[in-house]
Amino acid sequence: MARVAIVGATGAVGTTMLEILSERGHEPNELRLMASSRSAGRVIATKWGDVTIEDLATADPSGIEVALFSAGGGRSREFAPAFAASGAVVVDNSSAFRMDDQVPLIVSQVNDHAVADHHGIIANPNCTTMTLMMAAGPLHAAAGLRTMTATSYQSVSGSGQTGMDVLAHEIDVLGKDRELLAKGGWSEPGSDLYSRPIGFNVLPHAGSFAEAGYTDEEWKLVNETRKILEAPDVLVEPTCVRVPVMVGHGISATMHFERPVSVAEANEVLANAPGAQLWDDSKVPTPLDSAGIDDVLIGRVRQTLGEPGGISLWTVGDNLRKGAALNAVQIAELVLDTR
Amino acid sequence: MARVAIVGATGAVGTTMLEILSERGHEPNELRLMASSRSAGRVIATKWGDVTIEDLATADPSGIEVALFSAGGGRSREFAPAFAASGAVVVDNSSAFRMDDQVPLIVSQVNDHAVADHHGIIANPNCTTMTLMMAAGPLHAAAGLRTMTATSYQSVSGSGQTGMDVLAHEIDVLGKDRELLAKGGWSEPGSDLYSRPIGFNVLPHAGSFAEAGYTDEEWKLVNETRKILEAPDVLVEPTCVRVPVMVGHGISATMHFERPVSVAEANEVLANAPGAQLWDDSKVPTPLDSAGIDDVLIGRVRQTLGEPGGISLWTVGDNLRKGAALNAVQIAELVLDTR
Repeated sequence: MARVAIVGATGAVGTTMLEILSERGHEPNELRLMASSRSAGRVIATKWGDVTIEDLATADPSGIEVALFSAGGGRSREFAPAFAASGAVVVDNSSAFRMDDQVPLIVSQVNDHAVADHHGIIANPNCTTMTLMMAAGPLHAAAGLRTMTATSYQSVSGSGQTGMDVLAHEIDVLGKDRELLAKGGWSEPGSDLYSRPIGFNVLPHAGSFAEAGYTDEEWKLVNETRKILEAPDVLVEPTCVRVPVMVGHGISATMHFERPVSVAEANEVLANAPGAQLWDDSKVPTPLDSAGIDDVLIGRVRQTLGEPGGISLWTVGDNLRKGAALNAVQIAELVLDTR
Repeated sequence: MARVAIVGATGAVGTTMLEILSERGHEPNELRLMASSRSAGRVIATKWGDVTIEDLATADPSGIEVALFSAGGGRSREFAPAFAASGAVVVDNSSAFRMDDQVPLIVSQVNDHAVADHHGIIANPNCTTMTLMMAAGPLHAAAGLRTMTATSYQSVSGSGQTGMDVLAHEIDVLGKDRELLAKGGWSEPGSDLYSRPIGFNVLPHAGSFAEAGYTDEEWKLVNETRKILEAPDVLVEPTCVRVPVMVGHGISATMHFERPVSVAEANEVLANAPGAQLWDDSKVPTPLDSAGIDDVLIGRVRQTLGEPGGISLWTVGDNLRKGAALNAVQIAELVLDTR
């Protein structure tokens, strides 16, 4: 494999990127790990030997062929253009460039063809959108998606390691003092990560409020779906909710197409969808089933009881893997394959 | 107050019925508590003195004026008709009689008028439907509901005390052994209550599978909504999901009406809805906020981004209180008021 850098190497997604490079048998010609100055100097043991974390702010990107960024939108905006200018292809996991016309937004195995149009930066979609597209993409290709209502069950690791720390803390310490938990009376760690407790609770509010009463997380579902599916007119009704799950984002979706789609047709399309497993109702897929595996799981495929002719289904995927690190590595593979 | 019996007095809902009778200042002329033979003979300390649990199978219903049943559909089918025949008005919390044409299905403060048509049995709706109707009912009255997509986040107490025991067990004991939890390898208590672990997980499968790939819980949302709103043609698309929350059922809903409805109009309707609190986006209502209070909480009211002209919102309520025990007591109050 090429000379690779992982930017944000100490985070939940960066760590998973390292695992996935290893699992997929890659042998980088060079591997560089970068993070904020806080982590610089730490030595990480990798399959390919020990690597010392470099300070992103001072690292020289020369010679890097592929840079996997997962260090937040601010750092991507600040540093990704310089990496691209020095010759690297940046695969960026943040939202910084996703809606940029010059930047392809790729769900590997759904719209791989768009990789060809890059100008040095390729964006990795939002983790909830990613999981949903693994089902919606093939169905759209078959029948033309017209409307989609999508309601999420997003795990705390979507907020990074801090999200997992907050949930573990609330469950372990404050599970014994439910009254304190209800009042939101905890202090450490990450007390300002969520607006309300997440232990024994759900928050119908993932991300920050943006236009029209929808959160930025919900707008991502709308806008990224349209860009990935190349369907600017598709109508998406999003609701993003955080749930007390460590890993695995679930989405309940109802879709209507240009024509009625039967369950038999939907099942045939989804059974052949790459990167996805179609489960029948004898075992409904849950976040725990999806955690740690590459495939997105699809279940509960059924004809709509509401507006006729549509399909309702449930999809769940590991938000750190397909929802982030795996897809970034898959994009890198596409780039290296097509050079 | 009249001579009252609580049937299923030792369960999560029966216990809450006792609390609510007390909180609302009722002084029953007689209070009888009944349960299965397992609990018969136990003495319960109530606000009105000690009461010995009677065995439902052998109890004589003579003289009872109002019987609040929450002992499961089987016991309701077996015993409620005899209670009604002996002169009691039965308020039944099970699904046994809900769709019976001779049985009113009442969400107090939404369709109180239908109480008048009873023939000895009145049904209390499903807890998820109940919470949703507190928002959908007033909006339907204002603008005529045409379609509704409803996706639930249902707490484990909807499965009774066993549900809470299972979640506590999985969190406390198996939270330390995530691998065992993932495999579903626990044994006690209530190991057969849910098909998969609920701790650190969500189950997109509440209830049992019924027709067309929907669960009985989902069909209740469809059929009970139509009956309560007297809107047999309303199109409901239901998805019911269990989440690791102790108390409080949340529902994300998107509604379209006979005409476009603005956020301003919806907010005005919902701000005046009895038994409900409308919260703005400065504090989104969560299950923990709803637990232990009577009002259903409504938030995130917004114009649809998908099909135009509709309203999306979030509603959450205490499934043991408004979702079950409180509404049953409110129905009893309606019956006693109108005698």
